[in-house]
Amino acid sequence: MVPIISIVGKSDSGKTTFIEKLIAELNHRGYSVATIKHDTHGFEIDREGKDTWRHAQAGALSVIISSRDKLALIKRVEQELSLDDLSRLIEGVDLILTEGYKRANKPKIEVLRTQLDPEPLCSKTDNLLALVVDKIDIDEGIKAGVGVPCFYWDDVAGELRVNSVDIPLTPFVQSIIERTIRGMISSLKGLTGQGRIEIKIF
Amino acid sequence: MVPIISIVGKSDSGKTTFIEKLIAELNHRGYSVATIKHDTHGFEIDREGKDTWRHAQAGALSVIISSRDKLALIKRVEQELSLDDLSRLIEGVDLILTEGYKRANKPKIEVLRTQLDPEPLCSKTDNLLALVVDKIDIDEGIKAGVGVPCFYWDDVAGELRVNSVDIPLTPFVQSIIERTIRGMISSLKGLTGQGRIEIKIF
Repeated sequence: MVPIISIVGKSDSGKTTFIEKLIAELNHRGYSVATIKHDTHGFEIDREGKDTWRHAQAGALSVIISSRDKLALIKRVEQELSLDDLSRLIEGVDLILTEGYKRANKPKIEVLRTQLDPEPLCSKTDNLLALVVDKIDIDEGIKAGVGVPCFYWDDVAGELRVNSVDIPLTPFVQSIIERTIRGMISSLKGLTGQGRIEIKIF
Repeated sequence: MVPIISIVGKSDSGKTTFIEKLIAELNHRGYSVATIKHDTHGFEIDREGKDTWRHAQAGALSVIISSRDKLALIKRVEQELSLDDLSRLIEGVDLILTEGYKRANKPKIEVLRTQLDPEPLCSKTDNLLALVVDKIDIDEGIKAGVGVPCFYWDDVAGELRVNSVDIPLTPFVQSIIERTIRGMISSLKGLTGQGRIEIKIF
């Protein structure tokens, strides 16, 4: 079974934008990713008049279009499929990210746009791994309430550039550097070491 | 494994229209159907700017959108999948019809629009079951050449109407009526009993 992590959040909180960044970063680190989006509005994906659209209109329960580089499947269902059922349609990836599915019991990352609404949807008891927020100085009460690590939402990856060249870091090395720097900064007066940190040494 | 029948024919021969009729007729007889369309042009199905489109652009190899009544999967592949591989994505139907796939070795029905091009693509040696043509009096040479039964393309089902009411027929009863009438008509001078037959008795 491929591991699944759900990216949840209220409307317009920035879930899709965060997922885009996360996919790019995971691909950059060599992980292949699939996504599952939860739709509650009744999506339309095929275009009126196309052959596959005509097949479905005529009564085909499943319609596939297949070419040398991709395929699409549109399938009618009698009830919404669970994430585990949906994940069986996906093979050959390292990780599945979902957009939505706050009620499913998968590990979650919540995207919180405090400008729109400062209250998170989830707390630690909802299998929440982390909160991703739109400002560095998020209210300490919110942080304490959710009881999970908070990240600034551009902070998808730590980066090291030397002489303008990106230096790739393994997650282990990245973690050591990050923890060391956060530790140093937390010892400075008035700073906790959390949030986005940028250091330039010339 | 769900049985697969391929509907083949040249460009603009009327494959999609024939498949629409066939799906409706099979549904009417209680059979559930899925379809697989062969694409050679590089199809685009998702719409620019949609969340799922953004996931794929960001690098997701598979993207699913799922709601309470349907789901769609778009998946990148390294090489074109075979019909048997594609059919594994489909469950719970009685029959799969394909549009195209003349080179796959599945049983085939060819749609032939003699007005555009009188030469069939396939013959009996291509696993051809039947030819579906746009006129009743198709050239006898073509018929003999392909060596399979020829049907007029509106003749998807036999119908019996009594006092303007459609009488549903089981395939068995329909077959008996059809064979009896075709048998009678073939005994008439100059007729073979093939093609579309309409009888009205007032």
